[in-house]
Amino acid sequence: MRFRCHIFVCENRRPDADERGSCAARGGEAVRQAFKDELRRRGLKGEVRANGAGCLDACGHGPAVVIYPEGTWYGGVTPADVPEIVERHLIGGQPVERLRLPKLERGA
Amino acid sequence: MRFRCHIFVCENRRPDADERGSCAARGGEAVRQAFKDELRRRGLKGEVRANGAGCLDACGHGPAVVIYPEGTWYGGVTPADVPEIVERHLIGGQPVERLRLPKLERGA
Repeated sequence: MRFRCHIFVCENRRPDADERGSCAARGGEAVRQAFKDELRRRGLKGEVRANGAGCLDACGHGPAVVIYPEGTWYGGVTPADVPEIVERHLIGGQPVERLRLPKLERGA
Repeated sequence: MRFRCHIFVCENRRPDADERGSCAARGGEAVRQAFKDELRRRGLKGEVRANGAGCLDACGHGPAVVIYPEGTWYGGVTPADVPEIVERHLIGGQPVERLRLPKLERGA
């Protein structure tokens, strides 16, 4: 592992006419910046990385965020949610349940 | 998990004058497209996702790729390497050692 936790924030921008909307239009870039600021503030820079990502295939739930290696998905994240995710999940090890996306079961 | 494996390919583009170069300039977008094509060909679409990413902080090793949840990092990946990564790593469960990045040890 190069990072203890690796946060990917969807910043995909679809055309304005696309009825799904997009994570960029819903504020994905501000969410990533909020993670960067909060990680620095909490001394986690270097250990946890907040990364921009292209479409995470969760367009209806944007802004979408996935944190690895645990594979926890969050949706509808706002900058105001970020300190709680950092405090509870990244420091405390407990996902923020109210923001989690449902699991998708694929295959058999 | 929404995906069994989630591949992130750095597509970050730095200014041409930046001496580090960048993953986009070294062909990151072609690598991601090669993953998408190969995943479809091998029937893994939906189960494994090839995602574009912003800077993965491994600029000297581009194009950089990280695969989660295992957290395996690859560097200097070309489209010609992609079938081997899919066959050995994503299907066979064995990382392709010759392409792996060294581990970074951070903190105590």
